[in-house]
Amino acid sequence: MEQRNAGNPIRCKAAVSKAPGQPLEMEEVEVAPPRAHEVRLKIICTSLCHTDITFWRMKDFPGMFPSVLGHEAVGVVESVGDHVQEVAVGDTVVPVFLAQCGECPDCLSPRSNICSALPYRPGGMPRDGTTRFSLAATGEPVHGFLCVSSFAEYTVVDVAHVVKLPAGPELALPPEKACLLSCGVATGVGAAWKVAAVESGSTVAVFGLGAVGLAVAQGSRMRGAKRIIGIDLNPGKFEIGKKLGVTDFVNPNDIGDKNVSEVIKEMTGGAGADYCFECIGLVSVMAEAFKSSRTGWGKTVVLGVDGSAAPVSVPSFDLMRGRSVVGSLFGGIKPKDDIPVLAHKCLDKELELDDFVTHQMGFHEINRAFDLLTQGKCLRCIIWMDGACSEENGCS
Amino acid sequence: MEQRNAGNPIRCKAAVSKAPGQPLEMEEVEVAPPRAHEVRLKIICTSLCHTDITFWRMKDFPGMFPSVLGHEAVGVVESVGDHVQEVAVGDTVVPVFLAQCGECPDCLSPRSNICSALPYRPGGMPRDGTTRFSLAATGEPVHGFLCVSSFAEYTVVDVAHVVKLPAGPELALPPEKACLLSCGVATGVGAAWKVAAVESGSTVAVFGLGAVGLAVAQGSRMRGAKRIIGIDLNPGKFEIGKKLGVTDFVNPNDIGDKNVSEVIKEMTGGAGADYCFECIGLVSVMAEAFKSSRTGWGKTVVLGVDGSAAPVSVPSFDLMRGRSVVGSLFGGIKPKDDIPVLAHKCLDKELELDDFVTHQMGFHEINRAFDLLTQGKCLRCIIWMDGACSEENGCS
Ligand SMILES: NC(=O)c1ccc[n+]([C@@H]2O[C@H](COP(=O)([O-])OP(=O)(O)OC[C@H]3O[C@@H](n4cnc5c(N)ncnc54)[C@H](O)[C@@H]3O)[C@@H](O)[C@H]2O)c1
Ligand SMILES: NC(=O)c1ccc[n+]([C@@H]2O[C@H](COP(=O)([O-])OP(=O)(O)OC[C@H]3O[C@@H](n4cnc5c(N)ncnc54)[C@H](O)[C@@H]3O)[C@@H](O)[C@H]2O)c1
Ligand SMILES: [Zn+2]
Ligand SMILES: [Zn+2]
Ligand SMILES: [Zn+2]
Ligand SMILES: [Zn+2]
Repeated sequence: MEQRNAGNPIRCKAAVSKAPGQPLEMEEVEVAPPRAHEVRLKIICTSLCHTDITFWRMKDFPGMFPSVLGHEAVGVVESVGDHVQEVAVGDTVVPVFLAQCGECPDCLSPRSNICSALPYRPGGMPRDGTTRFSLAATGEPVHGFLCVSSFAEYTVVDVAHVVKLPAGPELALPPEKACLLSCGVATGVGAAWKVAAVESGSTVAVFGLGAVGLAVAQGSRMRGAKRIIGIDLNPGKFEIGKKLGVTDFVNPNDIGDKNVSEVIKEMTGGAGADYCFECIGLVSVMAEAFKSSRTGWGKTVVLGVDGSAAPVSVPSFDLMRGRSVVGSLFGGIKPKDDIPVLAHKCLDKELELDDFVTHQMGFHEINRAFDLLTQGKCLRCIIWMDGACSEENGCS
Repeated sequence: MEQRNAGNPIRCKAAVSKAPGQPLEMEEVEVAPPRAHEVRLKIICTSLCHTDITFWRMKDFPGMFPSVLGHEAVGVVESVGDHVQEVAVGDTVVPVFLAQCGECPDCLSPRSNICSALPYRPGGMPRDGTTRFSLAATGEPVHGFLCVSSFAEYTVVDVAHVVKLPAGPELALPPEKACLLSCGVATGVGAAWKVAAVESGSTVAVFGLGAVGLAVAQGSRMRGAKRIIGIDLNPGKFEIGKKLGVTDFVNPNDIGDKNVSEVIKEMTGGAGADYCFECIGLVSVMAEAFKSSRTGWGKTVVLGVDGSAAPVSVPSFDLMRGRSVVGSLFGGIKPKDDIPVLAHKCLDKELELDDFVTHQMGFHEINRAFDLLTQGKCLRCIIWMDGACSEENGCS
């Protein structure tokens, strides 16, 4: 890879979010060179995760405008700042919204994946809170998002937020697969493996069958779950869900006056599910997931992000009967340790990601990806930055 | 032990709770003989746990009147019903509010201590929901409590709810110590060992320094906790707490406008405690305990029983950053498996229970025990059914 831009700003296209819930606008932006501990990436492809939609809709902080959203991607290192040893120009990397500094108490503990040296700073780079983006025309700064900002041809990411992929020709994971490991799919698989540690023979209830929920289903199946109950308002999700391990389906619209938790108790002989995963982002569903969990050892794992930041309501008497609730970012995955493991599982076909890619399109069509995800019509839309979209793949 | 009453009702004294929050009244009751799978016990001594107070105050169901409260005790088997093999007349046993049938999925799993074959039936015996108590004068039935009902000279308990103590002269645990293992102390120690599995070097925050909270402190110290922060409104609790492992004390009345969680964060360099235990029974404190817990791996264990059955409010964004909440009955202890282990730890002086017994008195003084516990002036009052109380021990 040529290094001719190293040290200089790059002008390129970015899909800029200018107002809550409004279509992104394709703009020429300037991407500053990486500072110390930072790398500038040329994005190969990115995809849309529901968390982008949640923040895009937020009228108030931590919603920020204008901004470059996007945090599920794969890219190639274009240039590096001072003190960057871990990756070199030309490396293919996965950027991740969570840091792994490798040295703080959290990074050193097997119990945490929330780096405490580089806590999340909304809209800015993790070390100094500033942005590397500005509008080319006016120089107006444009906020970043989740330390990744992948809805741009180039982006700057802290080295603590990038994961080098296994190298070598036989180890080359196709970019669209690598992209899925950058957020949603890794989160779901990780939640089943690392957060819940689903036991063989268990019954699992998955609330929300998007990419996160279906990755939970697949991860649970890999761990030997016997029964995987999927809950979604969209009946289309059951067909694809079956391929990924979902054995039973509940549509909250089809159960009359009953609550989902009542239906799940009926389906499980009165007991409830051993593990419940909330993969939608509604505190009301989190409470329902908790109610659906079994006395004695029922574990509810909260993965969905409720934009209202509202509290979950957990009845104390139910809690006392041995139930637990745990929340997780990125499914307990430590980016630099665990993404390479997942990449190898993909190469070995132990983890099958084909079904997660339901649409592919060019960067210019990114607003269509927002429509598809908002309407629940896709799992993951892969957005190719070089525009190489094909009609067979659903790109119009 | 003579068996002359076997098969016949026994007339004896019971301290009957007749109306919410009103002093117990000493009554002559008739205790029916044990039915199949039941044993009748002569209570040696009982103590008062805050859960008795919580239910005694309840105006509505599951508060029930008249009733024989009490669930922390030790007794001797007076007679047994059909099909009872596990214990024999004359055995010293600890009755427990949780059953262990030994055969249901929960009893067979190491993950649960909530027997699903014999779920809790308020006010009655676990297999048929009826009571074995009636007023001798009128025949009016008197409800039981938590399957134990130890505020009576005799009581009937299901065999699934009794634990035989290690036998042999050198294994004879003094009754007042055995009594403590029947509920509060076992709950606290179990919560530190089994539910939280406190890691060596950790910081623990204990909300409420009654017997349950101080047993958590002692259990945490046994597991190598480095720092144990005790929170209580009663400054007297810090003195006794120090003996049991508490290293730092926070009195919510002495911190001005700050919340306890803010103070705990300050004390821990901004991080929060690794483990927080709620041992009071207020959902507001449960929420504060959660807020005091550390990002990444902070675990909040709820042991307190809030009589209002209100929900705990858990902010979803805080939850997602790796925190968890788990509730527990009896600290995850499986009665028949774990109480004998704790009894051996007491005999080996690994578990020191002397400080938990702050008062001893005769049965006739039971209302004084209610006053002492309500006012936070005691840890455990041992109430001797034979009335052998002594003035040195604080009995007036
Ligand atoms: N914890 C993390 O680190 C992490 C990572 C990625 C995504 N997330 C969050 O996980 C959630 C799922 O993300 P995704 O990308 O899979 O989203 P998605 O939009 O693809 O999937 C959500 C699914 O939920 C269904 N749904 C919506 N409302 C429902 C309801 N009331 N009842 C039942 N089903 C309902 C939709 O039909 C859809 O199938 C989002 O909240 C996202 O922000 C969290
Ligand atoms: N989960 C179980 O299996 C189990 C078993 C036993 C007891 N319990 C419950 O555990 C709790 C404690 O029981 P206990 O017998 O140790 O009670 P206790 O009355 O001896 O102790 C409670 C302590 O909390 C303190 N306190 C009260 N309000 C407070 C506040 N707002 N802030 C700080 N401190 C406060 C009191 O001063 C007292 O020291 C009760 O709710 C009881 O019902 C649960
Ligand atoms: Zn995401
Ligand atoms: Zn770190
Ligand atoms: Zn059982
Ligand atoms: Zn108790």
